[in-house]
Amino acid sequence: MASTLEEELVKYLTDAYALESQAITQLEAAQKVIDDPDIQQTVNGHLMESQAHEQLVGERLEAHGESPSKLKAAAGKAGALGLGAAASASPDTPGKLIVTAYAFEHLEIASYELLRRVAERAGDTGTVEIAERILKQERDAAEKLSWHFDAAVDRSLEAQGVAG
Amino acid sequence: MASTLEEELVKYLTDAYALESQAITQLEAAQKVIDDPDIQQTVNGHLMESQAHEQLVGERLEAHGESPSKLKAAAGKAGALGLGAAASASPDTPGKLIVTAYAFEHLEIASYELLRRVAERAGDTGTVEIAERILKQERDAAEKLSWHFDAAVDRSLEAQGVAG
Repeated sequence: MASTLEEELVKYLTDAYALESQAITQLEAAQKVIDDPDIQQTVNGHLMESQAHEQLVGERLEAHGESPSKLKAAAGKAGALGLGAAASASPDTPGKLIVTAYAFEHLEIASYELLRRVAERAGDTGTVEIAERILKQERDAAEKLSWHFDAAVDRSLEAQGVAG
Repeated sequence: MASTLEEELVKYLTDAYALESQAITQLEAAQKVIDDPDIQQTVNGHLMESQAHEQLVGERLEAHGESPSKLKAAAGKAGALGLGAAASASPDTPGKLIVTAYAFEHLEIASYELLRRVAERAGDTGTVEIAERILKQERDAAEKLSWHFDAAVDRSLEAQGVAG
Protein backbone atom coordinates (compact mmCIF):
# COMPACT_ATOMS: atom_id res chain seq x y z
CA MET A 1 0.00 0.00 0.00
CA ALA A 2 1.33 3.42 -0.93
CA SER A 3 2.55 5.59 1.92
CA THR A 4 2.32 9.39 2.20
CA LEU A 5 5.26 11.77 2.55
CA GLU A 6 3.89 12.71 6.00
CA GLU A 7 3.94 9.05 7.11
CA GLU A 8 7.49 8.62 5.81
CA LEU A 9 8.67 11.77 7.61
CA VAL A 10 7.23 10.42 10.89
CA LYS A 11 9.13 7.13 10.29
CA TYR A 12 12.43 9.01 9.85
CA LEU A 13 11.72 11.11 12.97
CA THR A 14 10.88 7.95 14.92
CA ASP A 15 14.18 6.35 13.83
CA ALA A 16 16.08 9.50 14.87
CA TYR A 17 14.35 9.46 18.26
CA ALA A 18 15.29 5.80 18.74
CA LEU A 19 18.92 6.54 17.77
CA GLU A 20 19.18 9.37 20.31
CA SER A 21 17.76 7.11 23.06
CA GLN A 22 20.35 4.53 22.06
CA ALA A 23 23.13 7.14 22.03
CA ILE A 24 22.21 8.17 25.58
CA THR A 25 22.30 4.53 26.78
CA GLN A 26 25.66 4.03 25.04
CA LEU A 27 27.23 7.23 26.43
CA GLU A 28 25.99 6.52 29.97
CA ALA A 29 27.60 3.06 29.75
CA ALA A 30 30.81 4.64 28.39
CA GLN A 31 30.99 7.03 31.36
CA LYS A 32 31.36 4.01 33.66
CA VAL A 33 34.25 2.33 31.82
CA ILE A 34 36.35 5.30 30.63
CA ASP A 35 38.94 6.59 33.09
CA ASP A 36 40.78 8.92 30.71
CA PRO A 37 39.77 12.48 31.72
CA ASP A 38 39.90 13.91 28.16
CA ILE A 39 37.78 11.11 26.69
CA GLN A 40 35.45 11.42 29.70
CA GLN A 41 34.94 15.11 28.91
CA THR A 42 33.97 14.35 25.29
CA VAL A 43 31.58 11.61 26.46
CA ASN A 44 29.95 13.85 29.10
CA GLY A 45 29.57 16.75 26.69
CA HIS A 46 27.98 14.64 24.00
CA LEU A 47 25.67 12.93 26.50
CA MET A 48 24.18 16.33 27.38
CA GLU A 49 23.87 17.19 23.67
CA SER A 50 22.17 13.85 22.94
CA GLN A 51 19.61 14.46 25.71
CA ALA A 52 18.82 17.82 24.08
CA HIS A 53 18.60 16.16 20.64
CA GLU A 54 16.14 13.56 21.95
CA GLN A 55 14.00 16.41 23.30
CA LEU A 56 14.13 18.33 19.98
CA VAL A 57 13.23 15.30 17.89
CA GLY A 58 10.46 14.39 20.38
CA GLU A 59 8.96 17.86 19.93
CA ARG A 60 8.92 17.44 16.13
CA LEU A 61 7.19 14.07 16.57
CA GLU A 62 4.60 15.77 18.80
CA ALA A 63 4.16 18.48 16.15
CA HIS A 64 3.16 15.64 13.81
CA GLY A 65 0.59 14.33 16.31
CA GLU A 66 2.63 11.50 17.78
CA SER A 67 2.03 10.75 21.46
CA PRO A 68 4.72 10.35 24.14
CA SER A 69 3.68 6.72 24.68
CA LYS A 70 4.42 5.99 21.02
CA LEU A 71 7.79 7.73 21.40
CA LYS A 72 8.63 5.38 24.29
CA ALA A 73 7.74 2.39 22.14
CA ALA A 74 10.01 3.75 19.40
CA ALA A 75 12.88 4.02 21.86
CA GLY A 76 12.40 0.35 22.67
CA LYS A 77 12.78 -0.59 19.02
CA ALA A 78 16.30 0.77 18.82
CA GLY A 79 17.43 -2.22 16.79
CA ALA A 80 15.47 -0.87 13.82
CA LEU A 81 18.60 0.00 11.86
CA GLY A 82 20.28 -3.29 12.66
CA LEU A 83 22.87 -1.52 14.77
CA GLY A 84 21.19 -2.20 18.11
CA ALA A 85 23.98 -4.54 19.12
CA ALA A 86 26.51 -1.71 18.90
CA ALA A 87 24.85 0.09 21.76
CA SER A 88 23.99 -2.90 23.89
CA ALA A 89 27.40 -4.56 23.58
CA SER A 90 29.89 -3.50 26.22
CA PRO A 91 33.18 -2.79 24.46
CA ASP A 92 35.93 -4.37 26.55
CA THR A 93 38.66 -1.82 25.79
CA PRO A 94 38.75 1.99 25.44
CA GLY A 95 39.85 1.35 21.84
CA LYS A 96 36.73 -0.62 20.94
CA LEU A 97 34.58 1.93 22.75
CA ILE A 98 36.02 4.77 20.64
CA VAL A 99 35.69 2.75 17.43
CA THR A 100 32.06 1.86 18.18
CA ALA A 101 31.17 5.41 19.26
CA TYR A 102 32.82 6.85 16.11
CA ALA A 103 30.77 4.49 13.91
CA PHE A 104 27.60 5.32 15.86
CA GLU A 105 28.14 9.09 15.36
CA HIS A 106 28.28 8.47 11.61
CA LEU A 107 25.16 6.34 11.79
CA GLU A 108 23.48 9.40 13.31
CA ILE A 109 25.06 11.79 10.77
CA ALA A 110 23.76 9.78 7.81
CA SER A 111 20.35 9.41 9.48
CA TYR A 112 19.99 13.18 9.98
CA GLU A 113 21.21 13.83 6.42
CA LEU A 114 18.31 11.68 5.20
CA LEU A 115 15.80 13.10 7.72
CA ARG A 116 16.69 16.64 6.60
CA ARG A 117 16.06 15.72 2.95
CA VAL A 118 12.71 14.05 3.69
CA ALA A 119 11.66 17.08 5.80
CA GLU A 120 12.64 19.41 2.93
CA ARG A 121 10.49 17.43 0.49
CA ALA A 122 7.61 17.57 3.02
CA GLY A 123 8.05 21.34 3.53
CA ASP A 124 8.60 20.86 7.30
CA THR A 125 10.99 23.74 8.00
CA GLY A 126 10.95 23.09 11.77
CA THR A 127 12.44 19.63 11.25
CA VAL A 128 14.90 20.89 8.61
CA GLU A 129 16.14 23.42 11.15
CA ILE A 130 16.69 21.01 14.05
CA ALA A 131 18.22 18.41 11.71
CA GLU A 132 20.83 20.96 10.59
CA ARG A 133 21.54 22.07 14.16
CA ILE A 134 21.89 18.48 15.40
CA LEU A 135 24.02 17.49 12.36
CA LYS A 136 26.59 20.13 13.25
CA GLN A 137 26.87 18.78 16.81
CA GLU A 138 27.11 15.17 15.63
CA ARG A 139 29.93 16.09 13.24
CA ASP A 140 31.75 17.95 16.03
CA ALA A 141 31.33 14.96 18.36
CA ALA A 142 32.74 12.60 15.70
CA GLU A 143 35.74 14.88 15.19
CA LYS A 144 36.38 15.09 18.94
CA LEU A 145 36.29 11.29 19.16
CA SER A 146 38.94 11.12 16.43
CA TRP A 147 41.24 13.28 18.59
CA HIS A 148 41.22 10.44 21.15
CA PHE A 149 42.51 7.68 18.85
CA ASP A 150 46.02 7.97 20.34
CA ALA A 151 44.83 7.99 23.95
CA ALA A 152 42.45 5.10 23.23
CA VAL A 153 45.35 2.97 21.95
CA ASP A 154 47.53 3.90 24.96
CA ARG A 155 44.78 3.14 27.49
CA SER A 156 43.88 -0.13 25.74
CA LEU A 157 47.49 -1.34 25.66
CA GLU A 158 47.92 -0.36 29.33
CA ALA A 159 44.73 -2.25 30.23
CA GLN A 160 46.21 -5.36 28.56
CA GLY A 161 49.38 -4.97 30.58
CA VAL A 162 51.57 -4.06 27.59
CA ALA A 163 54.54 -1.96 28.65
CA GLY A 164 54.71 1.32 26.70
CA MET B 1 47.89 -11.98 32.57
CA ALA B 2 49.92 -9.33 30.77
CA SER B 3 49.86 -9.41 26.99
CA THR B 4 52.69 -8.52 24.61
CA LEU B 5 52.59 -5.77 21.98
CA GLU B 6 52.95 -8.50 19.33
CA GLU B 7 49.87 -10.32 20.67
CA GLU B 8 47.88 -7.08 20.71
CA LEU B 9 48.91 -6.25 17.13
CA VAL B 10 47.70 -9.69 16.00
CA LYS B 11 44.35 -9.02 17.75
CA TYR B 12 43.90 -5.72 15.88
CA LEU B 13 44.86 -7.39 12.58
CA THR B 14 42.39 -10.20 13.30
CA ASP B 15 39.61 -7.66 13.96
CA ALA B 16 40.47 -5.84 10.71
CA TYR B 17 40.36 -9.14 8.81
CA ALA B 18 36.94 -9.93 10.31
CA LEU B 19 35.66 -6.45 9.40
CA GLU B 20 36.75 -6.84 5.77
CA SER B 21 35.04 -10.24 5.55
CA GLN B 22 31.91 -8.60 6.96
CA ALA B 23 32.20 -5.67 4.52
CA ILE B 24 32.36 -8.12 1.60
CA THR B 25 29.24 -9.95 2.83
CA GLN B 26 27.43 -6.63 3.31
CA LEU B 27 28.40 -5.24 -0.13
CA GLU B 28 27.47 -8.48 -1.91
CA ALA B 29 24.04 -8.30 -0.23
CA ALA B 30 23.73 -4.61 -1.21
CA GLN B 31 24.42 -5.46 -4.88
CA LYS B 32 21.23 -7.54 -4.90
CA VAL B 33 18.88 -4.88 -3.48
CA ILE B 34 20.20 -1.67 -5.06
CA ASP B 35 18.82 -0.78 -8.48
CA ASP B 36 20.20 2.76 -8.69
CA PRO B 37 23.09 2.60 -11.23
CA ASP B 38 25.23 5.27 -9.49
CA ILE B 39 24.92 3.65 -6.05
CA GLN B 40 25.53 0.27 -7.69
CA GLN B 41 28.81 1.58 -9.13
CA THR B 42 30.01 2.75 -5.69
CA VAL B 43 29.03 -0.61 -4.16
CA ASN B 44 30.78 -2.63 -6.90
CA GLY B 45 33.93 -0.52 -6.71
CA HIS B 46 34.21 -0.80 -2.95
CA LEU B 47 33.50 -4.54 -3.04
CA MET B 48 36.60 -5.03 -5.21
CA GLU B 49 38.63 -2.80 -2.88
CA SER B 50 37.42 -4.71 0.19
CA GLN B 51 38.47 -8.02 -1.38
CA ALA B 52 41.95 -6.53 -1.91
CA HIS B 53 41.99 -5.21 1.70
CA GLU B 54 41.10 -8.65 3.07
CA GLN B 55 44.03 -10.08 1.09
CA LEU B 56 46.45 -7.38 2.34
CA VAL B 57 45.43 -7.81 5.99
CA GLY B 58 45.59 -11.61 5.60
CA GLU B 59 49.19 -11.31 4.36
CA ARG B 60 50.14 -9.23 7.42
CA LEU B 61 48.54 -11.87 9.67
CA GLU B 62 50.59 -14.54 7.86
CA ALA B 63 53.72 -12.40 8.36
CA HIS B 64 52.99 -12.71 12.08
CA GLY B 65 52.73 -16.49 11.86
CA GLU B 66 48.95 -16.81 11.78
CA SER B 67 47.54 -19.66 9.70
CA PRO B 68 44.77 -19.41 7.09
CA SER B 69 42.55 -21.69 9.21
CA LYS B 70 42.78 -19.21 12.08
CA LEU B 71 41.92 -16.40 9.66
CA LYS B 72 38.76 -18.27 8.67
CA ALA B 73 37.81 -18.62 12.33
CA ALA B 74 38.37 -14.89 12.78
CA ALA B 75 36.05 -14.15 9.89
CA GLY B 76 33.38 -16.19 11.65
CA LYS B 77 33.65 -14.04 14.76
CA ALA B 78 32.63 -10.89 12.91
CA GLY B 79 30.40 -9.82 15.79
CA ALA B 80 33.52 -9.06 17.84
CA LEU B 81 32.94 -5.32 17.74
CA GLY B 82 29.26 -5.62 18.57
CA LEU B 83 28.34 -4.43 15.11
CA GLY B 84 27.71 -7.85 13.63
CA ALA B 85 24.01 -7.14 13.34
CA ALA B 86 24.72 -4.24 11.01
CA ALA B 87 26.06 -6.57 8.37
CA SER B 88 23.66 -9.46 8.88
CA ALA B 89 20.53 -7.30 8.97
CA SER B 90 19.00 -6.70 5.56
CA PRO B 91 18.16 -2.98 5.32
CA ASP B 92 14.68 -2.74 3.81
CA THR B 93 15.18 0.57 1.97
CA PRO B 94 18.04 2.10 -0.06
CA GLY B 95 18.10 4.83 2.63
CA LYS B 96 18.81 2.42 5.47
CA LEU B 97 21.34 0.61 3.32
CA ILE B 98 23.28 3.85 2.72
CA VAL B 99 23.04 4.83 6.40
CA THR B 100 24.30 1.43 7.55
CA ALA B 101 27.08 1.31 4.94
CA TYR B 102 28.19 4.86 5.87
CA ALA B 103 28.39 3.89 9.57
CA PHE B 104 30.25 0.68 8.67
CA GLU B 105 32.85 2.61 6.63
CA HIS B 106 33.54 4.72 9.71
CA LEU B 107 33.77 1.62 11.87
CA GLU B 108 36.52 0.49 9.49
CA ILE B 109 38.17 3.95 9.43
CA ALA B 110 38.43 4.08 13.23
CA SER B 111 39.63 0.46 13.34
CA TYR B 112 42.46 1.14 10.85
CA GLU B 113 43.38 4.36 12.68
CA LEU B 114 43.93 2.25 15.81
CA LEU B 115 45.62 -0.62 13.92
CA ARG B 116 48.07 1.86 12.37
CA ARG B 117 48.96 3.25 15.81
CA VAL B 118 49.48 -0.21 17.36
CA ALA B 119 51.64 -1.22 14.35
CA GLU B 120 53.70 1.98 14.75
CA ARG B 121 54.32 1.17 18.43
CA ALA B 122 55.30 -2.40 17.43
CA GLY B 123 57.65 -1.13 14.68
CA ASP B 124 55.73 -3.12 12.01
CA THR B 125 56.21 -0.82 9.00
CA GLY B 126 54.53 -3.30 6.63
CA THR B 127 51.27 -3.04 8.57
CA VAL B 128 51.59 0.75 8.96
CA GLU B 129 51.89 1.00 5.18
CA ILE B 130 48.85 -1.13 4.30
CA ALA B 131 46.77 0.55 7.06
CA GLU B 132 47.47 3.96 5.52
CA ARG B 133 46.71 2.75 2.00
CA ILE B 134 43.45 1.08 3.09
CA LEU B 135 42.45 4.12 5.22
CA LYS B 136 42.58 6.34 2.15
CA GLN B 137 40.26 4.01 0.24
CA GLU B 138 37.83 3.68 3.17
CA ARG B 139 37.63 7.49 3.46
CA ASP B 140 37.01 7.78 -0.28
CA ALA B 141 34.30 5.12 -0.10
CA ALA B 142 32.59 6.94 2.80
CA GLU B 143 32.65 10.20 0.85
CA LYS B 144 31.21 8.52 -2.26
CA LEU B 145 28.39 7.06 -0.14
CA SER B 146 27.58 10.58 1.11
CA TRP B 147 27.09 11.70 -2.51
CA HIS B 148 24.19 9.23 -2.71
CA PHE B 149 22.15 10.64 0.20
CA ASP B 150 19.78 12.43 -2.21
CA ALA B 151 19.32 9.42 -4.50
CA ALA B 152 18.84 7.14 -1.47
CA VAL B 153 15.97 9.35 -0.22
CA ASP B 154 14.38 9.45 -3.69
CA ARG B 155 14.65 5.68 -4.23
CA SER B 156 13.33 4.98 -0.69
CA LEU B 157 10.31 7.28 -1.11
CA GLU B 158 9.59 5.74 -4.53
CA ALA B 159 9.80 2.26 -3.02
CA GLN B 160 7.18 3.30 -0.44
CA GLY B 161 4.92 4.57 -3.21
CA VAL B 162 5.27 8.25 -2.26
CA ALA B 163 4.71 10.49 -5.26
CA GLY B 164 7.68 12.81 -5.87
